[in-house]
Amino acid sequence: MPAPLPDPPTVTAPSQVQTLPKESRLRLRPVGIDTYHENVAYLHRDCEVYRAEGFKALSKVEVQLNGHSILATLNVVDDARIVDCGELGLSKSAYRQLRGLKPHFGPASPTSLASLASTTSATITTSTSMATDTSADSTTDTTQDWAGHSAQHISVTISQAEPPASMGALHRKLQGERLNLADMRALVRDIAQHHFSKIELSAFLVTTNRDELDREEVYFLTQAMVEAGRRLDWHESMVVDKHCIGGIPGNRTSMLVVPIVAAHGMLCPKTSSRAITSPAGTADTMEILAKVELPIDELHAIVRNHRACLAWGGTADLSPADDVLISVERPLSLDAPGQMVASILSKKVAAGSTHLVLDIPIGPSAKVRSMPEAQRLRRLFEYVAGRMNLAIDVVITDGRQPVGLGIGPVLEARDVMQVLENDPDAPMDLRQKALRLAGRMLEFDPDVRGGDGFAMARDILDSGRALAKMNDLIVAQGSHSFNHHRPALAPLSFEVLSSRAGMVTGIDNLQIARIARLAGAPKVPHAGVDLRCKLGREVQAGELLYRVHAGFASDLAFARAAVAKSDAYTLGQAVDMPHVFVEF
Amino acid sequence: MPAPLPDPPTVTAPSQVQTLPKESRLRLRPVGIDTYHENVAYLHRDCEVYRAEGFKALSKVEVQLNGHSILATLNVVDDARIVDCGELGLSKSAYRQLRGLKPHFGPASPTSLASLASTTSATITTSTSMATDTSADSTTDTTQDWAGHSAQHISVTISQAEPPASMGALHRKLQGERLNLADMRALVRDIAQHHFSKIELSAFLVTTNRDELDREEVYFLTQAMVEAGRRLDWHESMVVDKHCIGGIPGNRTSMLVVPIVAAHGMLCPKTSSRAITSPAGTADTMEILAKVELPIDELHAIVRNHRACLAWGGTADLSPADDVLISVERPLSLDAPGQMVASILSKKVAAGSTHLVLDIPIGPSAKVRSMPEAQRLRRLFEYVAGRMNLAIDVVITDGRQPVGLGIGPVLEARDVMQVLENDPDAPMDLRQKALRLAGRMLEFDPDVRGGDGFAMARDILDSGRALAKMNDLIVAQGSHSFNHHRPALAPLSFEVLSSRAGMVTGIDNLQIARIARLAGAPKVPHAGVDLRCKLGREVQAGELLYRVHAGFASDLAFARAAVAKSDAYTLGQAVDMPHVFVEF
Repeated sequence: MPAPLPDPPTVTAPSQVQTLPKESRLRLRPVGIDTYHENVAYLHRDCEVYRAEGFKALSKVEVQLNGHSILATLNVVDDARIVDCGELGLSKSAYRQLRGLKPHFGPASPTSLASLASTTSATITTSTSMATDTSADSTTDTTQDWAGHSAQHISVTISQAEPPASMGALHRKLQGERLNLADMRALVRDIAQHHFSKIELSAFLVTTNRDELDREEVYFLTQAMVEAGRRLDWHESMVVDKHCIGGIPGNRTSMLVVPIVAAHGMLCPKTSSRAITSPAGTADTMEILAKVELPIDELHAIVRNHRACLAWGGTADLSPADDVLISVERPLSLDAPGQMVASILSKKVAAGSTHLVLDIPIGPSAKVRSMPEAQRLRRLFEYVAGRMNLAIDVVITDGRQPVGLGIGPVLEARDVMQVLENDPDAPMDLRQKALRLAGRMLEFDPDVRGGDGFAMARDILDSGRALAKMNDLIVAQGSHSFNHHRPALAPLSFEVLSSRAGMVTGIDNLQIARIARLAGAPKVPHAGVDLRCKLGREVQAGELLYRVHAGFASDLAFARAAVAKSDAYTLGQAVDMPHVFVEF
Repeated sequence: MPAPLPDPPTVTAPSQVQTLPKESRLRLRPVGIDTYHENVAYLHRDCEVYRAEGFKALSKVEVQLNGHSILATLNVVDDARIVDCGELGLSKSAYRQLRGLKPHFGPASPTSLASLASTTSATITTSTSMATDTSADSTTDTTQDWAGHSAQHISVTISQAEPPASMGALHRKLQGERLNLADMRALVRDIAQHHFSKIELSAFLVTTNRDELDREEVYFLTQAMVEAGRRLDWHESMVVDKHCIGGIPGNRTSMLVVPIVAAHGMLCPKTSSRAITSPAGTADTMEILAKVELPIDELHAIVRNHRACLAWGGTADLSPADDVLISVERPLSLDAPGQMVASILSKKVAAGSTHLVLDIPIGPSAKVRSMPEAQRLRRLFEYVAGRMNLAIDVVITDGRQPVGLGIGPVLEARDVMQVLENDPDAPMDLRQKALRLAGRMLEFDPDVRGGDGFAMARDILDSGRALAKMNDLIVAQGSHSFNHHRPALAPLSFEVLSSRAGMVTGIDNLQIARIARLAGAPKVPHAGVDLRCKLGREVQAGELLYRVHAGFASDLAFARAAVAKSDAYTLGQAVDMPHVFVEF
């Protein structure tokens, strides 16, 4: 049964057919919607281009402008005030990517350490796979943009997106196969360039969850993550760093370790993160004392003059794939060993560190809850660090309770300064832990005998040299007004009292962190929790366990509700105390 | 160090603290953005409520209106024309859910079979867990809404969303644990009610991928999916149905099996889907011949008068969780056995079927590629169907190539009508396969001897009774003008010729389907691929393999580009033919 052929077809042999992409030109329009790390493109339902086959089914489009291109998930719009027919809308980060503007996290536009190094003596190796041109001028990017229609009449091309090159590798992993370095490179490149949807990112994380990555695959992933971003080179043979796998509130040892080892002369350009799910990150706490977002040349001068800094990392440049993955790991509360190791070590290597002290706390409410688990994790860190030529010393520490007394930026800054000043009221556990980690770091120095590090660190702290170094850093970075002898805490507060007598045998890290966050930390810097009793203390009924500080009545009420569910304290007898076996 | 306490705190024992949800009132505003199956809430960055802690970190909010509530992922907006301070925007389906409007798929608002039964003799059991009030008036939902600001001044409450109740079960599955029926019920309820983000949906699918669900868990999942939706009861002891696991283009056997078994007197109220990723679904093809979206009472009368129908399923009501999961399975190309079995069987049970013939095609480019794999899948279908009290007959068929000649709605309708008319040019493989499946279905009749079904089906077809039944159904449903002797094919076309002589030893189902979709099928109903050579045919160089029809020049060019990459045909010798061992 021949079909009617009104337009006699040209018979063309397949090999002679040119690949003609299905594409159309549209006016670019920034849409002021923050979709986090997923690129979203908006097309009007009545748009001629939308009618074309495939856009709905594939739901992923490639948008091109002057040779740049990005992939985006398509949302269909019925409101011409968002996008009109003939326009293509892009969500905020997608618009930035396409225009070659700097990535932008929140209202401020901070300078990262990586961009610092680009104009100083440190050398940056930029992967050729980076799509984002961070050298472009970002001054055109104001909030005006989001209300300015497509005033600039930029014309973009939209076409059906081919699946990301690494989808084959993802599907093979979903089938249970082992991936090689080339697979990981392809996956990480696509992730860093926002070629994966949230769905695909989630699939990648879940299929590499638990023990689904062997240690060689974790090395491949780490290596690929380093290659996908920028890499700093400080031109010294030893660049020391410390890191904790997290989960312990109040654990601000970096602000003690850095001044101690820098006072000894080690190069320690420490970059820290802000809190993501915790009540305070090191950058949030340091910011109470000094500026942490600094212009390029200033920060470089500080590192040159003082051998250290305590700055915000602005991580976007160093391991861009990791930043994308975190946006999915967080809502899923995934923290698989392989992903943790790759995330931490890739950022350290990219930041130019050569020697790393890694803190793994163990405790009933810590991330790691048993010694065998800690040892497995330690071996994985050591294996991958070895493959990456990063010297590592893993220290297993006591994670049964928060470190120090304050939880929240201001309260933690108070604790740190008390330790540095050798205040007799300073929390001893914070001091001891910091000395232990600093001692291990000092022993990276080939001139330091094994076992001498702790005493050296103690001498540096007790002599006031660590405080002097910290004050130098504070002044150099730009000191903020802060009276740590009488810190201005958030005005609203309530006290949590013991309901009965007994020994404190447990403090739930997760619940204490949750209460502090609900009270406002770290967004409200002087909010948080101030502990008054720690493990082993015998308390009477009605005795003060801790005080909660908040800046807003609603925050206070929400923290109260959380305390009503659980105050995080367990009372019992001495025999109920959880044991923890840590090396010294 | 006591903190300054300007506002002397009231000391409240934890147990006396009331749980005070952190919530605020905002004006509801529909936002005309279609985000598929993910609810999105839009808040302006300067909104007082957004400032409150937790909204960003949790990124999931609960929106309440008159006791109804929905969960939504938060997007932050910088453009007051999308949402202003004091407003809460909701994406289209989220807005409908909150307002209790009917779910809405695409511009048309079709009547589903499930809603059909609600006012007829069929009985519907509605789960109490259904959040959507589908009885609400949907006439207020016009596109006006999306451009009408928040003119109605509806005030909603927004609060931090507690994690969905089943997140614990999801995390246990992520840790590798086995789930029970209560876990599956909680998960499916949350999925059906859109409580899961795309990230969480993806995590659920990947962590239940491959063999991660044992067969008991697959039964639990199936049962939970049935319970989460509506269930039809046709008040007869035998309601027959057929289903194919998919993946074979041109496989339109339902349009032959249904008239055959209905002519025998069996009750076969067949509901079919439209194409999702294929070039045509049964509903798309039937629509060439007759209306498939019918008012409630008409469709009921058809089933009562003719013992059958061939209608669009409007699946949203029968297994709502499945519709949500498909939105994530599709982009990931996941098709795990457990998920497939639960998806298919839950819809059949919910639709009131008691007896099912299930078609599993095997072939090198089919979903199932080996007999052991087919047998494993068969056992899983049989086990779960048994637990669900659904009689099942699994038929393993030849899936080495497309069935029939036409691929695309009009071309497939032509093939079907040729078979029904006993046209000597009718594709024999489609006829034989349909007779075999119909024969197996007839053998569900206790009065039919095992082995007699095929001959009975052939007699019904050859005698013209099947054609008469089909014509009855076409007239009853409302016939569309279609001349299957000279079908109006899409005006643009090109031919694909054999580059050399040889025997056709392979036709790639996936590539043929892709070419037909790119040519416009099923959106352009008269577009597609018309095969002229099938497996085993000896062809000469330059001989016509198939013709591609398209309605638009751009579609034609895109199909050409795909053919240039691969024309889907393999030529070789008789010994190269893939074998397939199918029972008869």
